[in-house]
Amino acid sequence: MELFEEVEVEAYVYPTEEVEKVKKAMLNLIPELEFEAFEKGDRVLLTGKTRSKKALQRLYELFRGQAILDTARDFLEEGYFGEEIIIRVNKQAAYAGVVNFNEECPLDPITIVIKTKDPQRLMRWLAPRTKDGVPIE
Amino acid sequence: MELFEEVEVEAYVYPTEEVEKVKKAMLNLIPELEFEAFEKGDRVLLTGKTRSKKALQRLYELFRGQAILDTARDFLEEGYFGEEIIIRVNKQAAYAGVVNFNEECPLDPITIVIKTKDPQRLMRWLAPRTKDGVPIE
Repeated sequence: MELFEEVEVEAYVYPTEEVEKVKKAMLNLIPELEFEAFEKGDRVLLTGKTRSKKALQRLYELFRGQAILDTARDFLEEGYFGEEIIIRVNKQAAYAGVVNFNEECPLDPITIVIKTKDPQRLMRWLAPRTKDGVPIE
Repeated sequence: MELFEEVEVEAYVYPTEEVEKVKKAMLNLIPELEFEAFEKGDRVLLTGKTRSKKALQRLYELFRGQAILDTARDFLEEGYFGEEIIIRVNKQAAYAGVVNFNEECPLDPITIVIKTKDPQRLMRWLAPRTKDGVPIE
């Protein structure tokens, strides 16, 4: 069984923003996205989907490189319902290639939805619990 | 005596935003601005200044066109300290050419600073109190 079936990413593009920059922010976290854009009043809802097996590789590396495995695990556990895991990350940090779970105003989040038949297995792989900074799962 | 000496406008440009779009939002409210940009970490602080006598003409018209004279007056009174009147307006609404005093997340405000020797006179001119929608000052 695959670790996950699909990853969906969503963010709003506000009037003073550039669609291409928001796409770049999303791709910095989840590569190989196929985008769609939907007009929502003065904003654009930008969605991206991928079924690539490498979709979560960058997040996997960032969680380790930034030494935030336990924080990431907490947010994954909190965002897990049924066969979906939903996390929200800071769009501006993503533009700089960094994961930040702080959705602080005025930065509006990027929402990442991971579809998986086995959320526990996915979470153990993507963000294992650590002790003294070393994965123990 | 002039109604005001100078108008300064400030806003942050976030990484996913376009400087030119934020400039446009500012110019939609206050024309003839001379801009300066300052790097502040991952953001840019964009400031604009003008001493044009027509600097507040657009706000004058918008307050009347949008029928928000009393609301505008309340915000002007609240933002008045010494010889400065400071108001904050919604950046995304400004991009659409509309004044909105709601600085709601995630839209980050544009700050407008009006420098005037006679704030009371300026406020009576820019946003007179109304009765049944008709100015009474």
